[in-house]
Amino acid sequence: MTLASGIHLIADLACTRGLGDAGLIEAALRAAAEAAHVRVLGVNLHHFGPEMGVTGVALLAESHISIHTWPEEGVAAVDVFVCGAQADPDAALAVIAAALGGRVVFRQAVARLGARRGI
Amino acid sequence: MTLASGIHLIADLACTRGLGDAGLIEAALRAAAEAAHVRVLGVNLHHFGPEMGVTGVALLAESHISIHTWPEEGVAAVDVFVCGAQADPDAALAVIAAALGGRVVFRQAVARLGARRGI
Repeated sequence: MTLASGIHLIADLACTRGLGDAGLIEAALRAAAEAAHVRVLGVNLHHFGPEMGVTGVALLAESHISIHTWPEEGVAAVDVFVCGAQADPDAALAVIAAALGGRVVFRQAVARLGARRGI
Repeated sequence: MTLASGIHLIADLACTRGLGDAGLIEAALRAAAEAAHVRVLGVNLHHFGPEMGVTGVALLAESHISIHTWPEEGVAAVDVFVCGAQADPDAALAVIAAALGGRVVFRQAVARLGARRGI
């Protein structure tokens, strides 16, 4: 567990593949964590059914990475919340985008807790 | 699974109790989902140890609710990502804040995917 200070990176992606493939998405979450220099405590996924989307969350020692996909709309919603100065959330996002043939159509980085002033 | 359109509510809380109580936090996540009118697929928690924080995520049919707590700093980071017009993320946040004796010190609501224009 790290200090209560982090970056919460939020991104929406337009994707070309893999959005209904739970195995690919689990592998992408694990590879994203490795790229971000964070430690995975566990990965939990739910596949909504054939041709349907996947919800997945990697619990991290440094917070979490989540993804929700909609194959029927060709989009995914990702968030990467990481605490600790060594963590690189954009590296995680790049790995997920590459795995899904994705283009980032929205990105916002939100400073959380001690990364803002006044708390 | 709902349409790819949602609200991602992000909040940091200053809290007075319960930050190291995994049972309380799991119950708060489930009560928060009920208050928000969303359906829980599963809840996963990690307790970092006695006197230490908890990371918890509720996977929802409508996306997710997460919480990360730091008892030693008296703070929690919450996010409530919900898709579907009937979902009420602020109701979920209020339930979590009440369970932890929490005061919201930061709140931002981010429109995701189809809730923005242009995607």
